Amino acid sequence: RILNFLHANCKANPPFFSQSIFDLGIGTYDSIITVTPATPIIVAINLFAERRVSALPVVDDNGVVIDIYAKYDVINLARERSYNDLDKSVHEALIHRQEGFEGVQTCQRTDSLRKIFTQIVKAKVHRLVVVDPSGKVDGIVSLSDILSFLLGIAPA
Amino acid sequence: RILNFLHANCKANPPFFSQSIFDLGIGTYDSIITVTPATPIIVAINLFAERRVSALPVVDDNGVVIDIYAKYDVINLARERSYNDLDKSVHEALIHRQEGFEGVQTCQRTDSLRKIFTQIVKAKVHRLVVVDPSGKVDGIVSLSDILSFLLGIAPA
Ligand SMILES: Nc1ncnc2c1ncn2[C@@H]1O[C@H](COP(=O)(O)O)[C@@H](O)[C@H]1O
Ligand SMILES: Nc1ncnc2c1ncn2[C@@H]1O[C@H](COP(=O)(O)O)[C@@H](O)[C@H]1O
Repeated sequence: RILNFLHANCKANPPFFSQSIFDLGIGTYDSIITVTPATPIIVAINLFAERRVSALPVVDDNGVVIDIYAKYDVINLARERSYNDLDKSVHEALIHRQEGFEGVQTCQRTDSLRKIFTQIVKAKVHRLVVVDPSGKVDGIVSLSDILSFLLGIAPA
Repeated sequence: RILNFLHANCKANPPFFSQSIFDLGIGTYDSIITVTPATPIIVAINLFAERRVSALPVVDDNGVVIDIYAKYDVINLARERSYNDLDKSVHEALIHRQEGFEGVQTCQRTDSLRKIFTQIVKAKVHRLVVVDPSGKVDGIVSLSDILSFLLGIAPA
């Protein structure tokens, strides 16, 4: 499969790179599944399994994003032998997070695809939480979304 | 939801921790989707989207695991502005992988759950490729599989 279209049109700096992720249709912007610091871990694990998502934004009472709980964090729980305590809260689970965590990575729906790429690579994360200017959850943009977009622009 | 069962029975060192992942039913051991170094990236991206997996073991002609290609690696491709070349091979894409990559993380189906936990945390990976003694792909054990197991042992 030779992608003539892309080869011919997008060699150096394709125009979509400057467009916003929202305009490009990259990401999920409704029915975002969130948890609160008080949510029991067992509920979060159920959400991972049933809703097939890999991370859950942690929000405060106003819907403002304060953290993120990912599938991977459950492994740390198990490592600490806390697997006997799945009714522990997300907040308690995240206290012990390894050093080096620099806070939840967020972006805005108006950010360009270029900016999102740079941020994901720099922060070595698998998704960004999209927030509105007040910090409330607006959406999620994950690796899956970016791959779907790449598929969409690649003529068969 | 109070997990009395776990609290009561598994406090210090639950017996399942010493059992093998295969005996515990953790992981996928058939129909493993693999690629070869020559597979075009666009084919790999399609597999991520259609088969809903997050990584593909890269195997040689004998089925021996030599590398792994994950969703995340596509982002690096895009970052290098090679998104105009999705017919590039997996091999070419992985040449440029960042330093610090220590080779594909593998395990065997007879490894204990404890060993798997330790390895996943140490290597900071999201899945291990299960190989047989000759190095051939035998299965995959991912975060999703471990979470499903934790759900299964947690009485409702
Ligand atoms: N917490 C969430 N709530 C709603 N959708 C999500 C959430 N996390 C990820 N998604 C979306 O679900 C799909 C798969 O996400 P992921 O498995 O995280 O790559 C993508 O389209 C994401 O935008
Ligand atoms: N390349 C693969 N081929 C077949 N099954 C896989 C592969 N990668 C992951 N799986 C399985 O698919 C499910 C979801 O995997 P993941 O999205 O990687 O967490 C788990 O049950 C894995 O064991």
